[in-house]
Amino acid sequence: MNLVKLQERLSAFADERDWHRFHSPKNLAMALSVEAAELLEHFQWLTESQSSSPESVDRSAVAAEIADIQIYLAMLSDKLGVDIEKAVNEKIDTNAIKYPPSVRPPADE
Amino acid sequence: MNLVKLQERLSAFADERDWHRFHSPKNLAMALSVEAAELLEHFQWLTESQSSSPESVDRSAVAAEIADIQIYLAMLSDKLGVDIEKAVNEKIDTNAIKYPPSVRPPADE
Amino acid sequence: MNLVKLQERLSAFADERDWHRFHSPKNLAMALSVEAAELLEHFQWLTESQSSSPESVDRSAVAAEIADIQIYLAMLSDKLGVDIEKAVNEKIDTNAIKYPPSVRPPADE
Amino acid sequence: MNLVKLQERLSAFADERDWHRFHSPKNLAMALSVEAAELLEHFQWLTESQSSSPESVDRSAVAAEIADIQIYLAMLSDKLGVDIEKAVNEKIDTNAIKYPPSVRPPADE
Repeated sequence: MNLVKLQERLSAFADERDWHRFHSPKNLAMALSVEAAELLEHFQWLTESQSSSPESVDRSAVAAEIADIQIYLAMLSDKLGVDIEKAVNEKIDTNAIKYPPSVRPPADE
Repeated sequence: MNLVKLQERLSAFADERDWHRFHSPKNLAMALSVEAAELLEHFQWLTESQSSSPESVDRSAVAAEIADIQIYLAMLSDKLGVDIEKAVNEKIDTNAIKYPPSVRPPADE
Repeated sequence: MNLVKLQERLSAFADERDWHRFHSPKNLAMALSVEAAELLEHFQWLTESQSSSPESVDRSAVAAEIADIQIYLAMLSDKLGVDIEKAVNEKIDTNAIKYPPSVRPPADE
Repeated sequence: MNLVKLQERLSAFADERDWHRFHSPKNLAMALSVEAAELLEHFQWLTESQSSSPESVDRSAVAAEIADIQIYLAMLSDKLGVDIEKAVNEKIDTNAIKYPPSVRPPADE
């Protein structure tokens, strides 16, 4: 996924509709949070095991919520000048130190 | 950003820590929603205008929250077999039809 | 719980700290949503069954999050002129019609 | 608002529909969080000033969301044995110490 191209496309989309005035980082973070709850709503009354099952989950509706979250995340990062890929790599590195892999028991135990 | 490689890396990370048992779609959607609120918290008491200002926003802390959201979004999509890039493109196409660009006033008005 | 007295107390508290300028309905709804996620975080990696168990849940920390949500709900309702008790009664009446009790099987089945 | 009576009424309501099996604390915290986002959605694209204005806000729809949050908060507290009123009083006392009132300037300034 080319994030820069996606951000350019989303910015042009907002331009054509005169929407940038609504897109303060505060509002975009709210919108992202609302979309995250709409995603959550799909799993709310399912058991964990049902939430993994294609019969219980409307995958195309869930995919549309995932898209909304990705879109707002790209727009917000663009407004704030955050490089998502760099931030992700740094976070994984931090987590690798914070949560070392479990020590495996010796093979003969 | 190579989403497939990111998903493979995150899956290996979870494997090494025996975390997959926690990563039902239900739990990942909850975790994503919690991270979205942590992002929101940074903007909560700011005005919209302050939320755009580098002096008011701790960009490196915000970047770490954005990374967490991107990470859970990639993990959840992986578990559900959702292609994020395809879902994003479809959503933009849907939005283009749902929200046509504002009609421009004629040039001589 | 006397909601009017609670709202008066919270309003005096905000007055004494000059906080009313931060307490637009928009900001209070954001704060409430952030607190709801902090509550959710306590249950995020628990199974449903663990979430009912006093050994797995830090009840005093959870009680503090519940208090935060109740406080923001009272403040927001005060700002908007919403009578919470009346709204709750109307919602229960609506739900009783929307979701009729399951029809019980006849006694001789 | 009599919280104990409300909790009894909500528990009977769930009983009549065989819904208690869905009402783990984990699920109720999720539902509360989803309702908080539905409330937030009403204010998402408004300015702070618009969010205070009766013309911009659909008060009856907002009241219904507030009711949903109060209902899930009462149900969750009931399941966990948390006394909401006591928790609220303790939280206000804690906040009074954590955030002392601003020192007022001397009267002759």
